[in-house]
Amino acid sequence: MDIKLSDRMSGLNPSAIREMFKVVQNPDIISFAAGSPSAAEFPVPELKAAALEIFDREAVPALQYGITEGYAPLRRRLTERLSEKFGIGRPFDDLIVVSGGQQCIDLSAKCLVNEGDAVLSENPSFIGGLNTFRSFGARLVGIPMDGDGMDTDALEEALKREKKAKLIYTIPDFQNPMGVTMSLPRRRKVYELAVKYGVMVLEDAPYTELRYSGEPLPAIKSFDETGHVIYSGSMSKVIAPGIRIGFAVAQKDLMAKMIVAKQGEDVHTNQFFQILVDRYLEENDFDAHIKNCCGHYREKRDLMLRCMEENFPSGVAFTRPQGGIFLWCTLPEGYSGKEFCSFAVERGVAAVPGATFDTQSDPKNRCFRLNFTVPSHEQIKKGVGILGDCLRDYLK
Amino acid sequence: MDIKLSDRMSGLNPSAIREMFKVVQNPDIISFAAGSPSAAEFPVPELKAAALEIFDREAVPALQYGITEGYAPLRRRLTERLSEKFGIGRPFDDLIVVSGGQQCIDLSAKCLVNEGDAVLSENPSFIGGLNTFRSFGARLVGIPMDGDGMDTDALEEALKREKKAKLIYTIPDFQNPMGVTMSLPRRRKVYELAVKYGVMVLEDAPYTELRYSGEPLPAIKSFDETGHVIYSGSMSKVIAPGIRIGFAVAQKDLMAKMIVAKQGEDVHTNQFFQILVDRYLEENDFDAHIKNCCGHYREKRDLMLRCMEENFPSGVAFTRPQGGIFLWCTLPEGYSGKEFCSFAVERGVAAVPGATFDTQSDPKNRCFRLNFTVPSHEQIKKGVGILGDCLRDYLK
Repeated sequence: MDIKLSDRMSGLNPSAIREMFKVVQNPDIISFAAGSPSAAEFPVPELKAAALEIFDREAVPALQYGITEGYAPLRRRLTERLSEKFGIGRPFDDLIVVSGGQQCIDLSAKCLVNEGDAVLSENPSFIGGLNTFRSFGARLVGIPMDGDGMDTDALEEALKREKKAKLIYTIPDFQNPMGVTMSLPRRRKVYELAVKYGVMVLEDAPYTELRYSGEPLPAIKSFDETGHVIYSGSMSKVIAPGIRIGFAVAQKDLMAKMIVAKQGEDVHTNQFFQILVDRYLEENDFDAHIKNCCGHYREKRDLMLRCMEENFPSGVAFTRPQGGIFLWCTLPEGYSGKEFCSFAVERGVAAVPGATFDTQSDPKNRCFRLNFTVPSHEQIKKGVGILGDCLRDYLK
Repeated sequence: MDIKLSDRMSGLNPSAIREMFKVVQNPDIISFAAGSPSAAEFPVPELKAAALEIFDREAVPALQYGITEGYAPLRRRLTERLSEKFGIGRPFDDLIVVSGGQQCIDLSAKCLVNEGDAVLSENPSFIGGLNTFRSFGARLVGIPMDGDGMDTDALEEALKREKKAKLIYTIPDFQNPMGVTMSLPRRRKVYELAVKYGVMVLEDAPYTELRYSGEPLPAIKSFDETGHVIYSGSMSKVIAPGIRIGFAVAQKDLMAKMIVAKQGEDVHTNQFFQILVDRYLEENDFDAHIKNCCGHYREKRDLMLRCMEENFPSGVAFTRPQGGIFLWCTLPEGYSGKEFCSFAVERGVAAVPGATFDTQSDPKNRCFRLNFTVPSHEQIKKGVGILGDCLRDYLK
């Protein structure tokens, strides 16, 4: 039969990263293509202990339907933590638990963006976010990036031009894919522009707690006195991603709609793991766990950068992230990130081509993304060595 | 600030059932308002044993990102079970794991329905389904029900009339809210009409395995030789709903789009519980568990019907379901289900007004829904007694 797909979905294809997964299943390939935290950092014994306690003491509420907003004690705990640690949340805000930070992007787009409306996104940006906007028929307007994050002058130009702009999408801390951090003046500017032009900001913050150097910067949401900012947080990078637990903070009227939208998507987030995360946070020193993860990731980042400095030819630029899980390489003019990644994977190293993250999927994109949290120290040394050889051969 | 919501979400409000939850938190109220299985049937020791094994043997894959399609061994196991037990699945089909049956409804609507397209739904029907269709801007066209399910003559009339019909939504077994079962000739007719008019069927089957009397009827999907049927299954009523594990079967090209849509919603379903369900199904006699649940639910259904026959005035009609978790009562002409439910809850018994499930939210709806799986035998006896008194007083 000939299936008539909806207009919003008919042009949308699986992301190149999903296709990449098939390549990196091969154990002979050293993969810098992941978007994951290191499994070595998962707090397995602590999660197991909490799970046992739930099965013994409160199996029924953990296995029965819950309310869409999420498990109330976890909501309270996250609300308090965000307020105390990051100055996030006002009386007009509400926090709900979502099925991973991805769902906050989806609910935001569903509740705000009509088909044909513009979403102003950092370019390059997280493919999962870009595809979600596309899946609601949004027009993506890419705002260029530099070492201080989104170019706010370009953002204002776009806001002046785009009469149907609904959402500004940003990952201010250790951006995916570039690894750069948005400067404080730009954070303030993004918020000001959102208020001035009456456009919402979606601040996606999955990596914020993974800072290895430099000083923490305030979240854009911490400036929000008007309800213009949606904050998306995630347990994926600091506890474990397979459990699909994230959280969203937004102005209550908008959140009420996001709750209705979530009800229609999955009723509520896995109740057992909501309780499990609550108990884990109650019974363990979460900040100490994060500090420990950061120590290990810092070592890997430093090793990776050192190896790149030693092995990469001088024409190849790369970012030096203060945190997160990615860094970003740029080839000289006239070379292709996609071509280079194909070349490298044949020699045993996987990276993700920059075009994947491009709002317009520009085939001339000359960048590629590297992950440093998943590979071992040995894999980093060997893999960056191979990449250096590949670069010299490719750039000949 | 004044938030400009998307058109698709701006008119959509929380379901009356969600509001009802607040009332039924009161322990003095006997609730027949639930949409849940009985917590007494959750296989807690078996799930606990499987969880422990996962923490000890395969914690890392259970906590790390998985692929959007779902955990491969679970997909294979469910595919085999559906094929062997229900004749569901053809070479052109694919099965994916979803975050509860609700997500299959959402993905189907997202991939098939443009704003303004018609969804032809049994009327009354599951509020969660109706709201999801509304959230994608669908126009709901209600098809009347009788004791044999959806009126297929009315369905054909609607298909002739509606040029932009994209989806027929049906719950053939023990329908929510009515508890009725679609007859075999009508199942065949729904499939024939779908093929004839080039419209997809979404067959929602969360209650199918909970049959207490009568003979099982084949799923509409079991007739599907052309790829016109999407089948939605769920573990919510036969294992536990809090874990949010369901599955969807559809023609591969459509499923490829549903996978892209799911990627943008929640990346993948909770990986730990996908593995847990797989291990539970591997290590336990699932059919024996279902048989056991059915025994307990059969007793409750029979008790409820007996009490209703004894206590309800003769002008009140009600369905006699062969399975599932609901039955449906109809007041005489001129009375309001909503008014009656308000009256009954003041006297200590909660039921859900029929208007909640009406595709047009008809305020003159004279029905209400009762659940019989959650209340205890004592609550059923006492609650139906009170309802009988309420009915006599209200219908005076």
